[in-house]
Amino acid sequence: MARPRRLHLGAFMRPVGIHTAWWRYPGGLPDANFDIRHLARFARELEAAKFDAFFMADHLALLNMPVEALKRSATVTSFDPATLLPALAMVTERIGLIATASTTYDQPFHVARRFASLDHLSGGRAGWNVVTTSNPDAAKNFGLKHHPEHADRYDRAREFVEVVKGLWDSFADDAFLRDVESGIFFDPDRMHVLDHQGPHLSVRGPLNVARPVQGWPVIVQAGASEAGRQLAAETAEVIFGAAGSLEDGRRFAEDVRGRMAAIGRDPDHLKILPACFVVVGDTVEEARARRAHLDGLVHEASAVAALSIALGVDAGAFDPDGPLPEIPETNQSKTGRERAIALARRDNLTVRQLAQRLGGYAGLAMVGTPATIADEMQAWLEAGASDGFNIMVSDLPQGLEDFTRKVVPELQARGLFRRDYEGTTLREHLGLPRPENRFFA
Amino acid sequence: MARPRRLHLGAFMRPVGIHTAWWRYPGGLPDANFDIRHLARFARELEAAKFDAFFMADHLALLNMPVEALKRSATVTSFDPATLLPALAMVTERIGLIATASTTYDQPFHVARRFASLDHLSGGRAGWNVVTTSNPDAAKNFGLKHHPEHADRYDRAREFVEVVKGLWDSFADDAFLRDVESGIFFDPDRMHVLDHQGPHLSVRGPLNVARPVQGWPVIVQAGASEAGRQLAAETAEVIFGAAGSLEDGRRFAEDVRGRMAAIGRDPDHLKILPACFVVVGDTVEEARARRAHLDGLVHEASAVAALSIALGVDAGAFDPDGPLPEIPETNQSKTGRERAIALARRDNLTVRQLAQRLGGYAGLAMVGTPATIADEMQAWLEAGASDGFNIMVSDLPQGLEDFTRKVVPELQARGLFRRDYEGTTLREHLGLPRPENRFFA
Repeated sequence: MARPRRLHLGAFMRPVGIHTAWWRYPGGLPDANFDIRHLARFARELEAAKFDAFFMADHLALLNMPVEALKRSATVTSFDPATLLPALAMVTERIGLIATASTTYDQPFHVARRFASLDHLSGGRAGWNVVTTSNPDAAKNFGLKHHPEHADRYDRAREFVEVVKGLWDSFADDAFLRDVESGIFFDPDRMHVLDHQGPHLSVRGPLNVARPVQGWPVIVQAGASEAGRQLAAETAEVIFGAAGSLEDGRRFAEDVRGRMAAIGRDPDHLKILPACFVVVGDTVEEARARRAHLDGLVHEASAVAALSIALGVDAGAFDPDGPLPEIPETNQSKTGRERAIALARRDNLTVRQLAQRLGGYAGLAMVGTPATIADEMQAWLEAGASDGFNIMVSDLPQGLEDFTRKVVPELQARGLFRRDYEGTTLREHLGLPRPENRFFA
Repeated sequence: MARPRRLHLGAFMRPVGIHTAWWRYPGGLPDANFDIRHLARFARELEAAKFDAFFMADHLALLNMPVEALKRSATVTSFDPATLLPALAMVTERIGLIATASTTYDQPFHVARRFASLDHLSGGRAGWNVVTTSNPDAAKNFGLKHHPEHADRYDRAREFVEVVKGLWDSFADDAFLRDVESGIFFDPDRMHVLDHQGPHLSVRGPLNVARPVQGWPVIVQAGASEAGRQLAAETAEVIFGAAGSLEDGRRFAEDVRGRMAAIGRDPDHLKILPACFVVVGDTVEEARARRAHLDGLVHEASAVAALSIALGVDAGAFDPDGPLPEIPETNQSKTGRERAIALARRDNLTVRQLAQRLGGYAGLAMVGTPATIADEMQAWLEAGASDGFNIMVSDLPQGLEDFTRKVVPELQARGLFRRDYEGTTLREHLGLPRPENRFFA
């Protein structure tokens, strides 16, 4: 009999809070994003709760926002993920460690080496979140006048991932003999020189690192756009999704799994984990009040800017304490406007409340008790809308610990989440196979 | 009264042994180079002995040697230094952590970010060994048909270092307010946008990391060639030197300090630490026997190749058990030939012994008791030939522990080395000033 389906849980931890006001929450740690002691504590807390992975996004430039919003953002000083995760590997034993690295502004030899090293250091817990970098300001930090076009970035990304996998396969798993007697350290017949020559990249190899413990570190992608979905269907093992509702999630999962089937990939070799903002209370009212408090800490300038962007009109002219007025059609994204209007209606928000909600965090959120959050997660899992979630907590340390100490036990009690790790590698946590070496049996 | 001059000690730990046969030494750890548990143990051992720094070289391709030698080399699988050092930062508290990064095959934004992150994670213990990468095979791993010329590499290196320093100075030390009450995270007036446009690099900035704890991580260079010496005189704070003898060291130090004076740099703001292979015994005979044993483990093919290269003639034709025959002049480097001949005479070596010496490690070596090694180090210090050494041990763990547990106490007893750390940062260990921010008072 097949094991009942269970959730996989990642924690999205760069920034440590996705809500723009997280660092102002009472009793919180305003420097949590940039203090290794706090980050080590969070990683251990997540491991004690048996999370699959600690996940770090990345930015290769300051976020491109007006200075009035930027100066209120805790994102402006953050650790390089590839530098932080090896440090966290030393204070944890089981939790997976996923870092973002860009295929547009880095080199496959560097990326392959770094993740192979992290995988060895951590005993097989590394994952690579493949991004093409969307912030056009990054180009200016890397000597380019213009950010490459979307299609070019994805072409290069596809080739880049293949090269990195090829480099990881430079040595057979049994290449290193270390035979003290004969003096032979490795068997050159068990080494493969990649010699890749492609439209975007030319890389000889071999990598000067043994094959990773996991064969390949786990490949993670966001896969939102058409090109992104296709690339994810071809190569991703985890999708960090952005579905805003269960129905969106179900459609997204169906689309990506259909693309996988079309190219002959086993759909079970991909875990879809949407980003999910969680706010926990002992009652639903308490959770809602907590979110309202957090939204209330979003500065008016940031809030009005976010609402204006969503609606495509200057929201500064509206009565902040009144209901959202009728909004005329504009050239602006229809989706953004419709979502904002629907949100205001559903939650009965004033203009200020709506603006602060959008300026705080406007994506998928589960706000409630451990039981109601578990209900929602279970519904997603059972509908095939996701294989779990990448949770984003409301505040640190309280919001994090409320999830790990209250919601996780509820999920465990329902048999929806592991009570202990059953393997040692991130692949094992996720139920993903160890890939075979392309060049050696 | 000025404090008596004291030695600074780094440990050159990538590879963990410089001698090509280190991994075969009896009682050793053949996988020491690639096992985080061993490396963590060594880092802690060096810290207990109050070393200034743990130092990692780097290679961006396999070493370019014939496969018969390569397959006997433990260098073929090693950690990426920028991935290993953050891990070691978590298992140590005081020792400096120096990693090599290439100015030819990396980007200043990445390098600045990585070392700034390491400096923050480690509480101010990071150092960057600036290299231009000499192995021409690296080019082929980074999409280049040809390795850039020496002069071009040094031009780019000079500009690269300046850009990295400029990025480190992106924020004033007091830029981050994290004012929960007002919601202001940082003061934009205390942020500098570099906007560098130069012949090799164009980088806008700012860096998305706060200014490093040390202001700038310590800048380390090798500085052997003419261009390298000049760049080191301009920018280095530590030189990882390669002097083969005290007299060479004295001349090198005089040359570099003269170049510093010529451009108005305080010569005390540079510490010259030559690489030094150490083999410790309770008697001089025991130490020599240990080295002979180690040399004897060098494979004949590697040994004869090394001797042939040094002499410029095929050494395979010589009687391995006889003395070195008369060697005719060739077009080969005169220095290499003369050094080899002098070495054979001085130590009364057979052809095989000479070949194995050269195939093992042929640079500066101190082979003796704790007292004789301390004598030699003291002589260098007093002659102004160095400010200390980057030691390279004969074998692991024994050779390392013999140095930390026998030689270090001897140096401490003579007042030549600290008994405890007096500061917390690598700059403080080395007696280097914290640089002022170029853009903010």
